[in-house]
Amino acid sequence: MRGLYIGRFQPFHLGHLEVVRTIMEKVDELIIVIGSAQYSHTHRNPFTAGERYEMIRSALIEEGISCSRFMIVTVEDINKHPLWVAHVRSMVPTFDVVFTNEPLNARLFEEAGCKVEGVPLFSRAMYSSTRVREECITSHEWSSLVPSAVSEVIKRIDGVTRLCQIHSSDS
Amino acid sequence: MRGLYIGRFQPFHLGHLEVVRTIMEKVDELIIVIGSAQYSHTHRNPFTAGERYEMIRSALIEEGISCSRFMIVTVEDINKHPLWVAHVRSMVPTFDVVFTNEPLNARLFEEAGCKVEGVPLFSRAMYSSTRVREECITSHEWSSLVPSAVSEVIKRIDGVTRLCQIHSSDS
Amino acid sequence: MRGLYIGRFQPFHLGHLEVVRTIMEKVDELIIVIGSAQYSHTHRNPFTAGERYEMIRSALIEEGISCSRFMIVTVEDINKHPLWVAHVRSMVPTFDVVFTNEPLNARLFEEAGCKVEGVPLFSRAMYSSTRVREECITSHEWSSLVPSAVSEVIKRIDGVTRLCQIHSSDS
Amino acid sequence: MRGLYIGRFQPFHLGHLEVVRTIMEKVDELIIVIGSAQYSHTHRNPFTAGERYEMIRSALIEEGISCSRFMIVTVEDINKHPLWVAHVRSMVPTFDVVFTNEPLNARLFEEAGCKVEGVPLFSRAMYSSTRVREECITSHEWSSLVPSAVSEVIKRIDGVTRLCQIHSSDS
Amino acid sequence: MRGLYIGRFQPFHLGHLEVVRTIMEKVDELIIVIGSAQYSHTHRNPFTAGERYEMIRSALIEEGISCSRFMIVTVEDINKHPLWVAHVRSMVPTFDVVFTNEPLNARLFEEAGCKVEGVPLFSRAMYSSTRVREECITSHEWSSLVPSAVSEVIKRIDGVTRLCQIHSSDS
Amino acid sequence: MRGLYIGRFQPFHLGHLEVVRTIMEKVDELIIVIGSAQYSHTHRNPFTAGERYEMIRSALIEEGISCSRFMIVTVEDINKHPLWVAHVRSMVPTFDVVFTNEPLNARLFEEAGCKVEGVPLFSRAMYSSTRVREECITSHEWSSLVPSAVSEVIKRIDGVTRLCQIHSSDS
Repeated sequence: MRGLYIGRFQPFHLGHLEVVRTIMEKVDELIIVIGSAQYSHTHRNPFTAGERYEMIRSALIEEGISCSRFMIVTVEDINKHPLWVAHVRSMVPTFDVVFTNEPLNARLFEEAGCKVEGVPLFSRAMYSSTRVREECITSHEWSSLVPSAVSEVIKRIDGVTRLCQIHSSDS
Repeated sequence: MRGLYIGRFQPFHLGHLEVVRTIMEKVDELIIVIGSAQYSHTHRNPFTAGERYEMIRSALIEEGISCSRFMIVTVEDINKHPLWVAHVRSMVPTFDVVFTNEPLNARLFEEAGCKVEGVPLFSRAMYSSTRVREECITSHEWSSLVPSAVSEVIKRIDGVTRLCQIHSSDS
Repeated sequence: MRGLYIGRFQPFHLGHLEVVRTIMEKVDELIIVIGSAQYSHTHRNPFTAGERYEMIRSALIEEGISCSRFMIVTVEDINKHPLWVAHVRSMVPTFDVVFTNEPLNARLFEEAGCKVEGVPLFSRAMYSSTRVREECITSHEWSSLVPSAVSEVIKRIDGVTRLCQIHSSDS
Repeated sequence: MRGLYIGRFQPFHLGHLEVVRTIMEKVDELIIVIGSAQYSHTHRNPFTAGERYEMIRSALIEEGISCSRFMIVTVEDINKHPLWVAHVRSMVPTFDVVFTNEPLNARLFEEAGCKVEGVPLFSRAMYSSTRVREECITSHEWSSLVPSAVSEVIKRIDGVTRLCQIHSSDS
Repeated sequence: MRGLYIGRFQPFHLGHLEVVRTIMEKVDELIIVIGSAQYSHTHRNPFTAGERYEMIRSALIEEGISCSRFMIVTVEDINKHPLWVAHVRSMVPTFDVVFTNEPLNARLFEEAGCKVEGVPLFSRAMYSSTRVREECITSHEWSSLVPSAVSEVIKRIDGVTRLCQIHSSDS
Repeated sequence: MRGLYIGRFQPFHLGHLEVVRTIMEKVDELIIVIGSAQYSHTHRNPFTAGERYEMIRSALIEEGISCSRFMIVTVEDINKHPLWVAHVRSMVPTFDVVFTNEPLNARLFEEAGCKVEGVPLFSRAMYSSTRVREECITSHEWSSLVPSAVSEVIKRIDGVTRLCQIHSSDS
């Protein structure tokens, strides 16, 4: 059985990793969709799709998950909700079940005849991409919130400086 | 060292596989970019990006290549050549060298400061996606031109009928 | 004489109906343009262009207005104001006068040489699409604000649940 | 029962009218979709969506078909085949059956779970939009190929001169 | 040496003029890029690219700067930051140095290998496009904030009325 | 009086220069619009908008035409003919008369209420951008067809090699 898990992963943090680990107990293979792929260098979407691809792949390898069990696919937003499911379907290999807690996503996939399951929430208050981005800008105590492989990617691309520059450009 | 190899792979055939095998002797990891990702169901681009992702991944696994050594990335065309390299770079993990024989692609990546190498051509006359598509429509002797994993995907999605329907819609 | 009346109609409510009735006393035929046609499933634009087409048509038939006296046209936003009038003109049959109270719309059509007239406001505080959408989510006392034909369409497509799901996805 | 009939109608000719008449014997209401709505002033798409809307509506009224039995909807092309059915569905009221002889359209709607029926072909050699456009440019004996209501619209907008200007711009 | 200076210039005010004058002491020729060229008639972007072109050109001529020393280029936004530098480069003549104080712009051009210099800030609190737009709507004491050539263009196109209409459409 | 002259200028050749010289006897100022601005590195559009801007400006300066008498504006294609005139108008300063021999362009501007005049044709067979591009690829006897300032720009950007690479990529 193949699952589908969609996110923006800006960046991929320990909460995401926990969700992936839990889903992988239920499925043989997991397709991880990096959404909003065309955006980067903004406050809400600081990292490019390529950088996020690298973060996720490194984190899963670091976690000991075999590359043969997951597929990462970058998908650009089309900003037209009724076409979203058809768009995702055309961009990814076939799948059996969608994992999401997001009500609109759940509805759109269900309306299109897909099986949808919720995902367990692991300390959502603690692990959120928004919080990681804020920690990067303010207190720089962000690295404990992400897998160390992700932390290395962010350091290599000088991601903290980028976040601060975006932040000062916005204001 | 990481290489980058771009194609439309409509579909991925034995010539492509040979190229991948040769490149992999030179690099540690290979990023395979599926271009023109947004198009499908046309004569020139019959298969969706998702179907092509599945074809390539299955073929490489069948060939015994470890999933940890390649990354597949789908990239939509932007139809503005001077932005092409910046677009690809934002969509894929970092790479060290681009493999291509296509003169314009080579120039665009070189102008952007990337290292570019040619790829060996294996019986180009025999193995071309154009020929595979034509064989599907006319003589149906196409399956010897593609890896058997690709042949299975095409059969599962009833790809030959699709090609014939596209062909009769065009004319 | 043919009039043009533009709105998003999210959804079409009793205030809109009153405006249509008033305009129809002045013109032989009315073109009703459903703007922002490409958007749906958002808080501001919950219903698809097709759903809105059905709502308006049913409501006018219910009201006893002959289908031969109105034309409904869906028009996608282009998000470039200086092209708006040329865009609308290319999408709709010819017209003699535009009915609007919206200052920018009035200016754009006037600058393009069109005759523009204001529309009477019927208890704007009471009848607004924003209020209908909020009532759907909070108190569910929305159905008295829309023609009963619209109420039936919203029930058939389970529109209230959709609005609630969009609302909880946003927050 | 509601049917859906899609075309570009460049322009709407006697063959189209015959198809509409035949379908209307089978359905209660017919949705006529004007495709490629955003294009005009080209050799292949000379008339605007608004002009085509007017042509079709006038021709059906002239034919004695009640406006309450048909709905005309303009739909812009999105140029991504796998999203086509979702796009059409979001733009038009609900329907029960699609009428088409076009193999790719038939396949796309069938794959999406819609009922599809073929339409009878009435002297296709004689009545085709391509032939009408060519007659306009060369021999000007085009008006016998279209309903007289369509002929009037083309004359009112000076359509023959437009076709000739487009033709001389192309060459 | 050729410099590049990017802004939206909504409108071009005395602070912009001061920056241009200062840069021109350092360079032989200056390329002035009018960004967000496709937008107009909004609160944030009230003037068209053509109107802004005229404002800047008239103001520099009025200032006594020779037309042979500056080039004005209108550039549409692409809303994808990683492609921004490649986009600008394809739209303008070659340049040697970029003048900007904007952190993200500085980073993007530096990452692409361009030389970037800051610009002196002349009473930023006093001269800002935001303030000019607000003055137009509220107190109409705006004309002392812009070069008189700009003031004339705004009066000729009845720009203050436009700003007020946009403002009342927004609210 | 201000004139408007639109072209793609791929590249700007001696025929274009002759047209500009002739128009300038009739007008005080000339706006030269570089159309299809977003395209480059294709057979039909080899040069970027920025390169074409530089070619035209250098050629006119070389010709002794004062920079204060012409304005160059780059305009992206929108590929929707009915919006073309509104698009151009929003991108360029105001103008009094359009110079063109192109029938569709003439019609579109006339329909929008603009004054249109034809331009004299100077040995069209001899001077055409198509011929210049072909000469670049085949016989390399192209430089006598363009102003020497244009020839210098093409040499500086290694344009002949680019044309040959595009040519071999196409075939």
